[in-house]
Amino acid sequence: MTGCGDIDATRLLGGRVTLFQPADGYRVAIDPVLLAAAVPAVAGQAVLELGCGTGAALLCLAARVPGLAVTGLEIQDLAAGLARRGAAESGLADRVTVLDGDVSAPPEGLRPNSFDHILANPPFWPTGRHTPSPSGHKANSHGEGAGDLAGFVRAALRLGKSRGTLTLIYPAERLDHLLSLLAGRFGDIRVLPFWPRAGLPAKRVIVSARRDARGPLTLLPGLVLHGEGQGYTPAVEAILRDAAPLPL
Amino acid sequence: MTGCGDIDATRLLGGRVTLFQPADGYRVAIDPVLLAAAVPAVAGQAVLELGCGTGAALLCLAARVPGLAVTGLEIQDLAAGLARRGAAESGLADRVTVLDGDVSAPPEGLRPNSFDHILANPPFWPTGRHTPSPSGHKANSHGEGAGDLAGFVRAALRLGKSRGTLTLIYPAERLDHLLSLLAGRFGDIRVLPFWPRAGLPAKRVIVSARRDARGPLTLLPGLVLHGEGQGYTPAVEAILRDAAPLPL
Repeated sequence: MTGCGDIDATRLLGGRVTLFQPADGYRVAIDPVLLAAAVPAVAGQAVLELGCGTGAALLCLAARVPGLAVTGLEIQDLAAGLARRGAAESGLADRVTVLDGDVSAPPEGLRPNSFDHILANPPFWPTGRHTPSPSGHKANSHGEGAGDLAGFVRAALRLGKSRGTLTLIYPAERLDHLLSLLAGRFGDIRVLPFWPRAGLPAKRVIVSARRDARGPLTLLPGLVLHGEGQGYTPAVEAILRDAAPLPL
Repeated sequence: MTGCGDIDATRLLGGRVTLFQPADGYRVAIDPVLLAAAVPAVAGQAVLELGCGTGAALLCLAARVPGLAVTGLEIQDLAAGLARRGAAESGLADRVTVLDGDVSAPPEGLRPNSFDHILANPPFWPTGRHTPSPSGHKANSHGEGAGDLAGFVRAALRLGKSRGTLTLIYPAERLDHLLSLLAGRFGDIRVLPFWPRAGLPAKRVIVSARRDARGPLTLLPGLVLHGEGQGYTPAVEAILRDAAPLPL
């Protein structure tokens, strides 16, 4: 990382993406990179990220899929501006659009039923943390105040095409809550767990679902993140460094 | 197996349990044996199986836990009678009670809020089979007509103690349905997937939950059923043959 006032730059996908983030407050871990790998978008399709923050998932997805144009929606001016700056620095400005707006009340420029794929890394309460963060940015990214998961699912239902996909990364410990919100309007649900190490409970899940579909749930074997040492397993390293896709 | 008219005997848990089943119609696979291993009951506690069928899970649980008395509820006379016969043949008659009755309208002898642990292997539609089975027994065990999963959860809510456990084995492809029924009244949910082989989606899950609890869901790494060859993996073999417990 290189300092730039209170903003610094992080390289993702082996340098394909430059992400600008505030040096304090909520910072990106690997979640959005994994999320971006799981979106089955191809060039020519319409893709929207709800609550794109500083753009990590959005930029990784655009960088991985040649010719794909993506749109992000972000309520915080600072984050949206950093996402645009990251797109420019990553050479993706012509394929990345970041709109200012609220997931719970999407701007009119986003037409209903128009997106083939919607992705999100929605806010959640980290385990054991039940008081708002003192940092407004942090609080609005993964804590109270960014709107609830239900608002994200409602927005996806409104903006996504029928038979379009919704892909989310979320804490495994709230899987029941997420599935309850998808019930009835989304089907073909696929759940991919991330195991911190072999033999440990999942910390995160990626869940994909198809609007208006009726097919049953698939619980996939998922990926182990860390091997014996500190490093990532080869399958995860391929996603994080080599921009490998993560087919669900 | 040894023939006995149209009833035959199957040995479970390395011969600790003798199960009598009709030679045709629905027959027990490994599901109830795995289910029984996952119930954390100890001697002195009150345990109920909803829809115990011919008694596979009930007898395996009683055989595994010394001194534990268990009760089964079964609507079909034939199955209930075979469960009693299996209990006698397995030397468990003094610790196994099988009641005739309907899960959706439990007999008055079963007092509300009285069981420490409730278990069930509820009926479900196998994938791709959407017409009633021609065998009445089969249809009533794992097809239409045996009451829905919601009835099982309602019965558990009524008959189980507050903070008591409910343990179910169910198709992974209906995990969303099961979790939706537990929402609000059960917490501390633990999901244990069974992977047919390493790298394949889960076919079954055991789900345990605690009535009136509020803790988050835990998605456990689960067990792989089959190794490279045809046999079970050592961990599964220990459950099936050596009566090992399966702690969730």
